[in-house]
Amino acid sequence: MRRITRDKIKPSEHKYQEVSSLNRLPAGARVTVRGMLYAVRDMGTFAFLILRGDALVQCVYNKTGAEGERELLREESAVEITGVLGEEPRAKGGIEIRVEAARLLSSPAAELPFALNKRTLNVALEHEIGLRSLTLRNERKRSVFKLQEGLVRGFRRYLEDSGFTEIFSPKLVAASAEGGANVFALDYFGKKAYLAQSPQFYKQMLVPVYGRVFEIAPVFRAEKHDTARHLNEYISVDLEMGFIDSFYDIIAAETAMLRSALSYLAEHCARCLELLNVTLPQIGGEIPCIPFREAKERVAERYARKLRDPYDLEPEEERLIGQLAKEEYGSDFVFVTHYPVKKRPFYAMDDPEDPAYTLSFDLLFRGMEITTGGQRIHDYHTQVEKLRAKGLDPRDFESYLQLHLYGCPPHGGLGMGLERFLMKLLDEKNIRATSMFPRDTTRLQP
Amino acid sequence: MRRITRDKIKPSEHKYQEVSSLNRLPAGARVTVRGMLYAVRDMGTFAFLILRGDALVQCVYNKTGAEGERELLREESAVEITGVLGEEPRAKGGIEIRVEAARLLSSPAAELPFALNKRTLNVALEHEIGLRSLTLRNERKRSVFKLQEGLVRGFRRYLEDSGFTEIFSPKLVAASAEGGANVFALDYFGKKAYLAQSPQFYKQMLVPVYGRVFEIAPVFRAEKHDTARHLNEYISVDLEMGFIDSFYDIIAAETAMLRSALSYLAEHCARCLELLNVTLPQIGGEIPCIPFREAKERVAERYARKLRDPYDLEPEEERLIGQLAKEEYGSDFVFVTHYPVKKRPFYAMDDPEDPAYTLSFDLLFRGMEITTGGQRIHDYHTQVEKLRAKGLDPRDFESYLQLHLYGCPPHGGLGMGLERFLMKLLDEKNIRATSMFPRDTTRLQP
Repeated sequence: MRRITRDKIKPSEHKYQEVSSLNRLPAGARVTVRGMLYAVRDMGTFAFLILRGDALVQCVYNKTGAEGERELLREESAVEITGVLGEEPRAKGGIEIRVEAARLLSSPAAELPFALNKRTLNVALEHEIGLRSLTLRNERKRSVFKLQEGLVRGFRRYLEDSGFTEIFSPKLVAASAEGGANVFALDYFGKKAYLAQSPQFYKQMLVPVYGRVFEIAPVFRAEKHDTARHLNEYISVDLEMGFIDSFYDIIAAETAMLRSALSYLAEHCARCLELLNVTLPQIGGEIPCIPFREAKERVAERYARKLRDPYDLEPEEERLIGQLAKEEYGSDFVFVTHYPVKKRPFYAMDDPEDPAYTLSFDLLFRGMEITTGGQRIHDYHTQVEKLRAKGLDPRDFESYLQLHLYGCPPHGGLGMGLERFLMKLLDEKNIRATSMFPRDTTRLQP
Repeated sequence: MRRITRDKIKPSEHKYQEVSSLNRLPAGARVTVRGMLYAVRDMGTFAFLILRGDALVQCVYNKTGAEGERELLREESAVEITGVLGEEPRAKGGIEIRVEAARLLSSPAAELPFALNKRTLNVALEHEIGLRSLTLRNERKRSVFKLQEGLVRGFRRYLEDSGFTEIFSPKLVAASAEGGANVFALDYFGKKAYLAQSPQFYKQMLVPVYGRVFEIAPVFRAEKHDTARHLNEYISVDLEMGFIDSFYDIIAAETAMLRSALSYLAEHCARCLELLNVTLPQIGGEIPCIPFREAKERVAERYARKLRDPYDLEPEEERLIGQLAKEEYGSDFVFVTHYPVKKRPFYAMDDPEDPAYTLSFDLLFRGMEITTGGQRIHDYHTQVEKLRAKGLDPRDFESYLQLHLYGCPPHGGLGMGLERFLMKLLDEKNIRATSMFPRDTTRLQP
C-alpha cells in the first residue's frame, strides 16, 4: 500500500531563481535557473545560450562533447543551468551566467518550422495565429500579452482603490441585453439560451447592492462581418456606478482608470514597451468631450467631408474626430457624447434637453471607438415606456425590471474592449494581433 | 449646436463620502453620504434611517412634515444625506449621522414583497435566487459575494507575487479538453463550436511562453444531473506551472494560494465573516496528502465501510476522508493523490511506479472536492500514445499537440471551483447559495 510520504518529492520552490531577479545579485554569485533555450549560438568550443525564463539571460557554455550534449543544445529544449553570474556589457541586461552544469529537462520532438528568436517573425498573421503556442514564444509577441496583463492590473488597481466590487456574471443567459441578431444561441436542456453580449443587466442589478461594480470577462457577438476591428469573442472591461450626478462622473472614472493603467505600464512594463516601440499616450488634464452632432459637423467642415448618416459615426469619421482631437487638443483620447436615441439601447437615458439624443458617450482612442457608456434609466415607469417605444415587450424583461421596480439610484457605466485598446496602443492594424486566440467568423482554433 | 461645455456637470468625486470611511472622522464632522435606505424606523417625531452605502450607518432624521417626506422615508429609496457625525454606542459601528438635510435621488415603484433588512431572509432559496437583484441587498446575502471577491483578490495576490501571468483564453472552442458528453454545443457560422469546459489546452500552451499562468473565468459543463454541488456554469480558478519537479510543487503552490486567500479574508473581510459566522480554516504546516487507494482503504477500515467502485470516490467517501483528515491531522483540507488512470483525462501523466495510477490529486475541503490537478504529459510521443490508448485520434488535437511537438517543460496545474470553495467555507448545503446567478438544468434567469 502506498504510504503518505513514500514517493513525496519536496516542492521545488527556491530550488531555482527567476531570471528577472538575477540583476539584483552580485557578480560572482552562484545561481540556478530553469527555462527554455531561446537561442543557441554555437561558437565551436563553446556556445552562447539565451535562456528564456520570465526574462532572457545569456549563458556561456563550454562544450565537452559529452553524451547528450547535442540534445541539450537545441532551441526550445527545457533546461536547468547552474553557474556563476558575471558582468558582461555586451549581453542584454549587462550580465551573463558562466555555466558550470546544465541539465536537460525535456526536448522538442520536431525542428522549429521557422526561427523564433528573430526580432520580427517572418510569418503572415494568419499563420502566426495558427501557431500561437509557438509564435508567442518570440520575445516581442510574448510582450504583447504582458501589456494586456499590465492594462488589466492597472484597471483593477484603480477599481479596487475606488470602491468597485468585482462581480462574475453568467455568460449563459435567457435574454440578450443589446437585442438584435448578433447573438449566439444554443440548446440548453431543451430551452433556448444565448451567450451574453455584455454583463449589462447584471451589473445594473448589482448597483443597489454594492454601489459600484466591475467585471473583466469575455463577451460574445455573433457579428457576421469579418473586419480588422471586430472579434466574435472579446474581453470586455465593464463597470457600473450608482449615485452619479451625470454621465460625466462615468467619464471621470474612465479617465482615472485609463491613467491608472497607463502609469501601471510605465512602472512595470518598461521592457515590453521598449521591445514593441510603444509610446504611451499622455492624459494631461481632462480628456476633451465633444457632442456627437457637433463632432460630425466639425469634422465635415474641417476636413471638407459630406455629412451622410446623421445617426452614426462611420469608421472614417471616427478617425477624423481622432485627428481633430490630436490637432486641436493634443489628445490621443476624445469622448464623443450625446449619441442619438436611435443608435443606443433601450436602457440609455434620454437627454432631457433634447430627447432625440441620449446621455451617453463613446471614447475614441487614436481615432477608434474603444468604449461605449452612459447614464441608464433608473425609473421603473420610464424604463417600461422606453421598452415599449423600442418595440419590446416589458414582460420579456421581468427579472431585469425588478431592479427598477424595487428601487435603484441614478447610475451609469461603460464597457471597454480590451483587445481594441491594446490594438490602438500598439498601433496594430488588425485586432487579431492583440487577441491571444482570436475568434472570427472562420476561426475556432487554436 | 451643442458646444462642448454647455451642459457639462462636474463629476461628483469627493462630493460625498463613502460610509466605510466615516469611522476615520472625528465626532462633530459634517459629512455627506449617498446610499439606499435599508431600514426606516419611524419613532413619531423623528426616524432612524439605516443607510446602505458601502457599509451601513445609522442616521437620525427629525421629521418636519414637509412635502415629499413620505416618499423620502421609504425603504430602498436612494438618498443623499448631509449631517453631523456623532458618537452613539447603541448604533452599529458606534457612530451616527444627525441629519441636517436629506435629498431624494430616486424612488422604488413598488412596495418590497418582504422585509429585506432582517438578519435572516424568510424566503426559500428558490425564491431568493429568482429575486437576487433584491435579496442581495440584504446585509448578510451581500456579504457572501464580498467574500467571493476577497477570495479572488487573495488568490491573485499570491499568483501575481509568484510570477504567474494572467491569461484570457477563449470560451468558444473547436474541441473539448475533457472529452465526454458534458459539453454545450452551438452553431458557429455553420461550424460546430463548444463552450470550453476548462482552459486546459490554452494554459498548457502558454507554459513554454510565460512559465506560469493563471486564469479566473467561467467554464461550462452540460451535466444533466441536478445536485446540490454542481452548476452548469461556474468560475474556475485555473493555474498551470512549468519546470516542476513533481506534482507536489503544484500542491505547494495551491497551499500557498489558499493561505493567501484566507489571510486576505482575515485582513479585509472581518465584518462579512462575522455577519456570516464564518470560522476560517487554519493551515498550519503542510496539508496532509493521502494516496487515493490508501485513502479508500483507511476510510473503509476506520468507518467500517464496504469498498465499492475502486476507481472513483463517492461523495460519502469524500466526506469520510475529510472527517479522517480532521480527526487524525486536525486539518480542514486534505489532498488525495494518485488517482486511477481510468478516471483522469488523456493529458494526465501516469505514475512511473504504478501505471494504473496518475501523478494527480484532488483537494478536499471539509469533505468535498474543490480542486483537481496534477502533472501533465510533456513528451510528444508519450502524449500521442496516450491519446490512442484512450481511443482518441491525435489528428483531432493537432493545434494542442504543437505544444509537445515544439518543446515544453515538465509542468502541471489545477482548477478550483470558486463557488464550491465558498460553499464549504460558509457551510452552505447548496452551491446555489454561493453563486450569484446560478445556472442549473432548469435555470437561466435572472
